[in-house]
Amino acid sequence: MLDFKQKLENYALLAVKIGINIQPGQTLVINADIVSAELVRLIVRQAYEAGAKLVKVNYSDEFVTRTRYELAPSESFLEPPKWQADELEDLARKGAAFLSVVSANPDLLNGIEASRIADNQRTAGTAMAPYREMMMANHVSWSIVAYPSTTWAAKVFPDAAPEAQVDLLWDAIFKAVRADQENPVEAWSNHLAGLKQRCDILNERKYRKLHFTAAGTDLTLELPEGHIWCQAGAVNGRGIPFLANIPTEEVFTAPLKTGASGKVSSTKPLSYGGNIIDKFTLTLENGKVTDFTAETGQEALASLLAMDEGSAYFGEVALVPFHSPISESGILYYTTLYDENASCHLALGAAYAFTLQDGIAMTKEQLAGHGMNQSLTHVDFMMGSPEMNIDGITDDGNTEPIFRAGNWASSI
Amino acid sequence: MLDFKQKLENYALLAVKIGINIQPGQTLVINADIVSAELVRLIVRQAYEAGAKLVKVNYSDEFVTRTRYELAPSESFLEPPKWQADELEDLARKGAAFLSVVSANPDLLNGIEASRIADNQRTAGTAMAPYREMMMANHVSWSIVAYPSTTWAAKVFPDAAPEAQVDLLWDAIFKAVRADQENPVEAWSNHLAGLKQRCDILNERKYRKLHFTAAGTDLTLELPEGHIWCQAGAVNGRGIPFLANIPTEEVFTAPLKTGASGKVSSTKPLSYGGNIIDKFTLTLENGKVTDFTAETGQEALASLLAMDEGSAYFGEVALVPFHSPISESGILYYTTLYDENASCHLALGAAYAFTLQDGIAMTKEQLAGHGMNQSLTHVDFMMGSPEMNIDGITDDGNTEPIFRAGNWASSI
Repeated sequence: MLDFKQKLENYALLAVKIGINIQPGQTLVINADIVSAELVRLIVRQAYEAGAKLVKVNYSDEFVTRTRYELAPSESFLEPPKWQADELEDLARKGAAFLSVVSANPDLLNGIEASRIADNQRTAGTAMAPYREMMMANHVSWSIVAYPSTTWAAKVFPDAAPEAQVDLLWDAIFKAVRADQENPVEAWSNHLAGLKQRCDILNERKYRKLHFTAAGTDLTLELPEGHIWCQAGAVNGRGIPFLANIPTEEVFTAPLKTGASGKVSSTKPLSYGGNIIDKFTLTLENGKVTDFTAETGQEALASLLAMDEGSAYFGEVALVPFHSPISESGILYYTTLYDENASCHLALGAAYAFTLQDGIAMTKEQLAGHGMNQSLTHVDFMMGSPEMNIDGITDDGNTEPIFRAGNWASSI
Repeated sequence: MLDFKQKLENYALLAVKIGINIQPGQTLVINADIVSAELVRLIVRQAYEAGAKLVKVNYSDEFVTRTRYELAPSESFLEPPKWQADELEDLARKGAAFLSVVSANPDLLNGIEASRIADNQRTAGTAMAPYREMMMANHVSWSIVAYPSTTWAAKVFPDAAPEAQVDLLWDAIFKAVRADQENPVEAWSNHLAGLKQRCDILNERKYRKLHFTAAGTDLTLELPEGHIWCQAGAVNGRGIPFLANIPTEEVFTAPLKTGASGKVSSTKPLSYGGNIIDKFTLTLENGKVTDFTAETGQEALASLLAMDEGSAYFGEVALVPFHSPISESGILYYTTLYDENASCHLALGAAYAFTLQDGIAMTKEQLAGHGMNQSLTHVDFMMGSPEMNIDGITDDGNTEPIFRAGNWASSI
């Protein structure tokens, strides 16, 4: 049984070796809130020990962010973060790696005027678009890990004693990221090999359509010609493997932009831009969301769907069985990095270029021509459940089971 | 008697209203270590309440800094921080204000190879030169305040119980910055008026030379034609008053670059680039340091003097009486912001353009032509003591007392 310090060191090691897979002479950019400094410092040390030339930590502070949203004049949110965006783009072109440590209070922007949040998302999203596109095409190595802030832990374990909440979240995180194991690097190799096997089967079958059914959901998704089922373990533009999410349990691909029709109901709350959107349904025709309802966060959902043309279309479909470790923990994390790995999900917004054959070499226009959705945003939401059935429909109209009652069908 | 929270609010208020004097619609850049977040957050709130458009906090982390110096390859220190430097210059041109919160462990870079520190100082200094020149000419509002980190407090109060050290340093800081007073803004107005009176007298006398004598010191400084005695309360390029240091007790001007001759001995340790330089002497001829000794930090002093041509010449002479509040506290702070306000001091490196008549409108070449020293650096060191006498020598050769036994002569 490892102690806390050993597990934390393991976690930092996974971020550096499995997540980013830092290379000698490389620059690493870390985006993190100041509350996660304890983990950031270990990652910085391990990155330099592995040969990094420079580790640049961009610390944020959610109190500073909240205060700006509360008090700044509205024109503050129309000012693009030009220098940061240009720097990130320049670093990405030069082969830097990018690690995000997420820790945000899911209710951070509760009560803030939705137009301010939308303005900021659009302004920053536009400025950051070239950098984001390089990430989404896997030109550069990038990864996301989580750190349990007190506010986040309180949201996840509201019934626990306040002094126990962070420890409970640490336990859940260490287990999910396998940092509690003696050889976490080997554990990840084995796990990723299992996910790759699922991808290989689905890529062989080349389904034309997927059909999802569950309570509140009856949705058909067409898949583009040349779609590729992927897992988060990827290879960057220089041939270096990396893992974009720690933890990860999903296999995913891109739907055809105009090929979604029917209705889908969310099964977990979605934390979007510091607000919770919960118990929502989307109705789609020819790929586009034409109607929606939400018991919580209606305004935030409306603002997401109106962000740009592509934010009302899907860019990702991901399969996660109900019998997977994060799902079986029964914990609702209120953060996409974890909740998406406990549930089948879809993303509103941009498709990943690498989920299409030869996609990473294509221009935006070429990707769009192949039915890959384009947008400034990419927001996952959860729709999996223990009742969900998924069928695959082949080119010649045959229907084959992919999921039955929330888990992989025996034939997959 | 104010409680801690009220004193901290007063301190934030002083930083925003007296230090920066933030104006509606202005951008404020805050440079601070993450340990000072508690104060930074109050400053951010008060700045927005006073009308700031955007408060941009650039958080650093001394653990990350130290790790880089320990482990990064040496070429890491030759890479200029181009984007940050360009952003700061751009923001300065657009009228932003700049606040630094200093909290550094004076021993942070103890044991680090001097060449790495020197490389980084030169690389960053060169990149940041345009921004620094705008600050040093008071084109923009800038200010420095301090925050008591545990490592700094331990250095200042080594004999106190560890859990008491930070509180002791808070008490000393609150007193020095007058945050313990009911109306700290008024207290600062009165104090600055007193400093201005000293400046007015010295500016009327227009001394040609200053002659310093004390144990280990016998130094003559020539002053340039048109020199101006200043205090830290200044007016920026847009006519807005600000206070560059909180606290401040000094009046200062520029010496003639080539006009220093004799010998000067330090009277307090100097924290320079994360190392301590102590018990040192400089010998000068025609303004230039031609010889030096140091009981501690000889290598760091050598590296400072060799940074560029101007770092071996003086750019500032400042007068602080021994009977001033920070001096009388008897505390050695190991940080220039405090120690320079307890002692007469000189600076190696660049002169402030505003300490010469019409200086802020001059080019670097014109300033140099008037005998104002130019350099990438500006490092104050303390040479005042209770024995120090200072004479002013007039154009016609008369000698008049300025300081006697460490304090202002009765005729000033």
